[in-house]
Amino acid sequence: MSRKLRMGMIGGGKDAFIGAVHRIAATMDGEIELVCGAFSSNAEKSKISGAALYLPEDRVYGDYREMIEKEKALPADRRMDFVAIVTPNHMHFGPAKLAMENGFHVVLDKPATFTLDEAKELKKVIEQTGAIFCLTHTYTGYPMVKEARQVVASGRLGKIRKVYVQYPQGWLSTYREGTHYKQAEWRTDPARSGISGCMGDIGTHAFNMAEYVTGEKMTHLCAELNIVVPNRLLDDDGMVMMKFTNGVTGLLYASQVAAGEENNVRVTVYGEKGGLEWRQEDANSLVLKWLDQPAQILRAGADYLSTFAKAGTRTPPGHPEGYLEAFANLYMNFAHTLRAKLEGKKVPEEWLDFPGIDEGIRGMAFIEQVMASNASAQKWTPFEI
Amino acid sequence: MSRKLRMGMIGGGKDAFIGAVHRIAATMDGEIELVCGAFSSNAEKSKISGAALYLPEDRVYGDYREMIEKEKALPADRRMDFVAIVTPNHMHFGPAKLAMENGFHVVLDKPATFTLDEAKELKKVIEQTGAIFCLTHTYTGYPMVKEARQVVASGRLGKIRKVYVQYPQGWLSTYREGTHYKQAEWRTDPARSGISGCMGDIGTHAFNMAEYVTGEKMTHLCAELNIVVPNRLLDDDGMVMMKFTNGVTGLLYASQVAAGEENNVRVTVYGEKGGLEWRQEDANSLVLKWLDQPAQILRAGADYLSTFAKAGTRTPPGHPEGYLEAFANLYMNFAHTLRAKLEGKKVPEEWLDFPGIDEGIRGMAFIEQVMASNASAQKWTPFEI
Amino acid sequence: MSRKLRMGMIGGGKDAFIGAVHRIAATMDGEIELVCGAFSSNAEKSKISGAALYLPEDRVYGDYREMIEKEKALPADRRMDFVAIVTPNHMHFGPAKLAMENGFHVVLDKPATFTLDEAKELKKVIEQTGAIFCLTHTYTGYPMVKEARQVVASGRLGKIRKVYVQYPQGWLSTYREGTHYKQAEWRTDPARSGISGCMGDIGTHAFNMAEYVTGEKMTHLCAELNIVVPNRLLDDDGMVMMKFTNGVTGLLYASQVAAGEENNVRVTVYGEKGGLEWRQEDANSLVLKWLDQPAQILRAGADYLSTFAKAGTRTPPGHPEGYLEAFANLYMNFAHTLRAKLEGKKVPEEWLDFPGIDEGIRGMAFIEQVMASNASAQKWTPFEI
Amino acid sequence: MSRKLRMGMIGGGKDAFIGAVHRIAATMDGEIELVCGAFSSNAEKSKISGAALYLPEDRVYGDYREMIEKEKALPADRRMDFVAIVTPNHMHFGPAKLAMENGFHVVLDKPATFTLDEAKELKKVIEQTGAIFCLTHTYTGYPMVKEARQVVASGRLGKIRKVYVQYPQGWLSTYREGTHYKQAEWRTDPARSGISGCMGDIGTHAFNMAEYVTGEKMTHLCAELNIVVPNRLLDDDGMVMMKFTNGVTGLLYASQVAAGEENNVRVTVYGEKGGLEWRQEDANSLVLKWLDQPAQILRAGADYLSTFAKAGTRTPPGHPEGYLEAFANLYMNFAHTLRAKLEGKKVPEEWLDFPGIDEGIRGMAFIEQVMASNASAQKWTPFEI
Repeated sequence: MSRKLRMGMIGGGKDAFIGAVHRIAATMDGEIELVCGAFSSNAEKSKISGAALYLPEDRVYGDYREMIEKEKALPADRRMDFVAIVTPNHMHFGPAKLAMENGFHVVLDKPATFTLDEAKELKKVIEQTGAIFCLTHTYTGYPMVKEARQVVASGRLGKIRKVYVQYPQGWLSTYREGTHYKQAEWRTDPARSGISGCMGDIGTHAFNMAEYVTGEKMTHLCAELNIVVPNRLLDDDGMVMMKFTNGVTGLLYASQVAAGEENNVRVTVYGEKGGLEWRQEDANSLVLKWLDQPAQILRAGADYLSTFAKAGTRTPPGHPEGYLEAFANLYMNFAHTLRAKLEGKKVPEEWLDFPGIDEGIRGMAFIEQVMASNASAQKWTPFEI
Repeated sequence: MSRKLRMGMIGGGKDAFIGAVHRIAATMDGEIELVCGAFSSNAEKSKISGAALYLPEDRVYGDYREMIEKEKALPADRRMDFVAIVTPNHMHFGPAKLAMENGFHVVLDKPATFTLDEAKELKKVIEQTGAIFCLTHTYTGYPMVKEARQVVASGRLGKIRKVYVQYPQGWLSTYREGTHYKQAEWRTDPARSGISGCMGDIGTHAFNMAEYVTGEKMTHLCAELNIVVPNRLLDDDGMVMMKFTNGVTGLLYASQVAAGEENNVRVTVYGEKGGLEWRQEDANSLVLKWLDQPAQILRAGADYLSTFAKAGTRTPPGHPEGYLEAFANLYMNFAHTLRAKLEGKKVPEEWLDFPGIDEGIRGMAFIEQVMASNASAQKWTPFEI
Repeated sequence: MSRKLRMGMIGGGKDAFIGAVHRIAATMDGEIELVCGAFSSNAEKSKISGAALYLPEDRVYGDYREMIEKEKALPADRRMDFVAIVTPNHMHFGPAKLAMENGFHVVLDKPATFTLDEAKELKKVIEQTGAIFCLTHTYTGYPMVKEARQVVASGRLGKIRKVYVQYPQGWLSTYREGTHYKQAEWRTDPARSGISGCMGDIGTHAFNMAEYVTGEKMTHLCAELNIVVPNRLLDDDGMVMMKFTNGVTGLLYASQVAAGEENNVRVTVYGEKGGLEWRQEDANSLVLKWLDQPAQILRAGADYLSTFAKAGTRTPPGHPEGYLEAFANLYMNFAHTLRAKLEGKKVPEEWLDFPGIDEGIRGMAFIEQVMASNASAQKWTPFEI
Repeated sequence: MSRKLRMGMIGGGKDAFIGAVHRIAATMDGEIELVCGAFSSNAEKSKISGAALYLPEDRVYGDYREMIEKEKALPADRRMDFVAIVTPNHMHFGPAKLAMENGFHVVLDKPATFTLDEAKELKKVIEQTGAIFCLTHTYTGYPMVKEARQVVASGRLGKIRKVYVQYPQGWLSTYREGTHYKQAEWRTDPARSGISGCMGDIGTHAFNMAEYVTGEKMTHLCAELNIVVPNRLLDDDGMVMMKFTNGVTGLLYASQVAAGEENNVRVTVYGEKGGLEWRQEDANSLVLKWLDQPAQILRAGADYLSTFAKAGTRTPPGHPEGYLEAFANLYMNFAHTLRAKLEGKKVPEEWLDFPGIDEGIRGMAFIEQVMASNASAQKWTPFEI
């Protein structure tokens, strides 16, 4: 199949931060090209966005239904292979379902859906259609996060005991939703974001990180959420005590009112023999700490890393790669997997290392259980799906 | 009063880590000299320790009762002014009470006592005797922790919203109390440490840090403790969700099984306008983070610091001072305060900046409430004294 | 001009590290597409590389002459707009000259040419043809390096006194040119690299950085080079004392035998009132140090940065961008400038902030003068072009 | 010998930064007590300083000659054992010589003397009297610097190739010698400091560090010094290219006008197999970098360190020790060595690890050769003593 994979985009018009990120990430490795889009629910805006992206006019659509219908009608050597859906949460399920039911594969921004039920329903659609589905939990695309998972899985740290994840941001420290700031508006709006603000937006990332790196599943949680900024409608801060399978315990905190923080994702794991720490602020390093030996700094691009980490690095050690490359790794693995499927080839396990609907369902369950625990006077709430 | 203050020591014999620390800290600034000691409950061991410290034989005692009695009998120009008590927790209350009742001032290692009741009783003794009393919560002796408190108090961060404190250690990751390792033995022994291990030993430091830096008082807590290492008798790991006065919320975690960690004390505070972070691993820096301005790195020794921080630094910026100097700052402030009292002088507020019995009582209450919350199925336990 | 700019590539076949970097960088921002290439002097290899890049067969050429000729013959709405030349140094001048003389613009990997004379000749070609020319000194593409230059230019540091630049690598610590490692082979081969190894390859980057950030020009130098690894033909290590215009002095060192280093580019500048430091290992931060105030950490993406820095960041603060994005910034500015020229529009100054032939000539002069100084017994050699 | 060693101090009155440092360092480990002093050439000032240190009046002297004479006349069980000389450079030789000739051992602040000839003469006095002599090059007292030397000596880095040392300070960025600032006055005064300012004061530290860590001796140098601040009389900035025995080459720079820097001592060494880096700003860590393995962070206090490093740490890992403890390590080793001599015992090699007169002579030669090279138009000046 000597061609690039063809991507259509739903959402991601001019002002949308994450749409541009998806486009850079998708096309970075030369495996995917953007061929069409329905960039806004406003047809005029969609047209302007498409033109700015140098798309031909006839591949810029007024809404996602039109796009799916018309692309489906195109000849196989022109029509898109998959859609990237980058709309607010309430507009995830519908486009994803319709796309898959019409033969298109899907890359979907997180959290998976508006409700847990939608996520479960989406899983059925995936199973019925056989579509390849990728959920963009960006942080697990970092090569040194992949390495962290492999270090744990290898048993080098011994049995895992503790996991701490944090995700503090400061950008919602004031009432920015009242300032015509689009990002703040929809992310604090229950009608578009869902039942949770901070926990839905970034707590899910932290939760996904904890399960991804440890390989364990949460079994119980004890959450306390806050609406710190007056008049805000959704939580903007929270903390969660957690129990996982195999006796692992830990903490998660996420905040959008940690004034002065940017995007300070961090994960720390301790086992019987040692620990590991990864911080997005030093994304190309993974620190291993040992009981009786000097700590080690593993570096992206190095020969001694696992195939999972090596597959996610484009340059030799010392050439820092960042958020866009981590995001691109999700698309790269998705693309390799999709291409292998289209070509009927076997997929190496490192290419399958991208989040899918099961992570999406767990993320939605996390949101619902965190809200339930927050409302409860009991210490522990079981994590159920 | 043209002489050094004279210190006697109770505990702190040859193998005791913290005894040597107290001696270095007490004498560092040339205001205090060690003149006598009852270094062990074993008279022979006490004698050997005293000799190694070049003390005259007649000032090395077989037990603390003998020391207090005989020192009291010495002429005023020879006898000790105060005692430093560095025994395990179960041996704090008795010596402290006896010393004060016999006219000696007291420096006491933390936690204050074996039980909360003892701590309350000790407060009465202090009030009755008028003794100067210092509790060695070392970490609040660091100049940049003092600065952190002043930054918060100044209102520069706006109203405080969040506080996170952590204190992970890894030294009890294995069952070291079974290896004739004295430090591990008594700190995991309920008969000598009290009802809590990790939370009593280091959780209290973290709790003290949170209240010291924010200036707020804990009102509710939700704790979950673990005994991670099999056969251990006391908690070696735990996490606490916290509510404070004035709407501040936060998290505390402490662990002695964080394999690979040394003594990684960290405190992070966020207010409306910015945040601060201090880490013992970079003890001479205090990072201030701002909503709309570049972060700043305040440095120990700098001219722009508060008098509280400047009083706790001996060298110009760039000459790192550490744990021993932080410890010495407690003794220095205690010594200045004691000397002023003896000379009938007024004490500047920066000298009064050392922990006393109120911090001791709150620390003991923290231990008891953490244990209560851990045993409770309710999410929130009120913090009561 | 509602279309992407069309790029052809000379060199950059399958095994070439820098070819892939150029392709990612060029296409990252959606302004440029790769339409053709002569990826190798071996026609068969070129074909294979082109196929792997999903190029149509008729746009993959056997050599650069063929490419330039045939592309020129294509209709205007299909033919490439510019070439990216990513061959070893001895193959820079010929293709660049031919391309420009046939109406194509040029992006050229550094150092500009094989000799200083070639670089001077190239400048004439540029002036005669009016071509837009970009030399890829990557490190000045980092937003925080751009900010560093603006901070200096703004006078906030006062008159500049000192500049230190370092570029240690460790990858040539052993005789890798003897192991069929292509990167090592040509970079240590005088026939392909020129008269210098380390100084030509990475010393020129450091030199460019020093002049870019300070805005000063070197006037004298005192260099000492080494061939550390036995049997190597070119310098693999060196140090240079430097004098600049306006009394600035400084140091440069570069090494390819700094075992354990990756790509540790660093620049430090001191003025009367303060200093700045940038390290590639923490590329999204710029530290400003002040005589009497706390140091500040400026962060990529922040609102308080100059337009030059802001134009080179794609994501909000806290989403690390790296080497590929810095490289992409060169292409982005080149593309904006080229597009403006093609559209007859005015170019904002921040888009003109990319290295050109004058930097190329100075870099080649640096190589020649460093070799001359190394051979001289005199301390100071004037920097002449 | 069951008593503390008795120290007298020459210089170090109230305003002298380094006097207080010496007193803290000397007494920190309980092996030494201050018994007398001639703290100023002004007898009245000396008296006031002595009183502030709680010394008996009859042990505070009007000048060093009086002190040496009168202490010598005291009975053996009262008189001082050694003197610490902390005067400006022009007052080093006289007191040191007189003290040794009268049977006292000597600790001397660096640089050793006012001239190289004096240093050579001092060596003869040491040899004739058999005095124990310690020169306080503080930075080699840091445990992780000691470890660095041991790592190199062990051969783990392979044959050493490169050494870089830096010592930037910013405190003389303005003409502070014109502001009645005593530290600035004498350090910029040729009559008290000698022929060099910056190189004599801190360049000698950096030079000593380079030789100490690598175990090599400088053979050639090429220096360029600057007087950056107008009207200053001595160099305040400089850089030196260096050649050492066994083919090691490197760079040294030192500056007192690096505005915003505090005391940023750093040493970096590269060998065939790896490198090491130590920075005073992170003094408790030593980073080892390896060609093909993850970098390691060695930490003060850890069990895996050499006996040399372990002997210089008082607390477990994670309790930061700093400048004062490094300084105290010099005194501790000096004291152990002196005590062993007095007791006729053998001295373990880790106690002998403190700088002596040979380092002092080399330091003075460094000052003279740097000045000579600076004045020379030749690139390389041989390092001769």
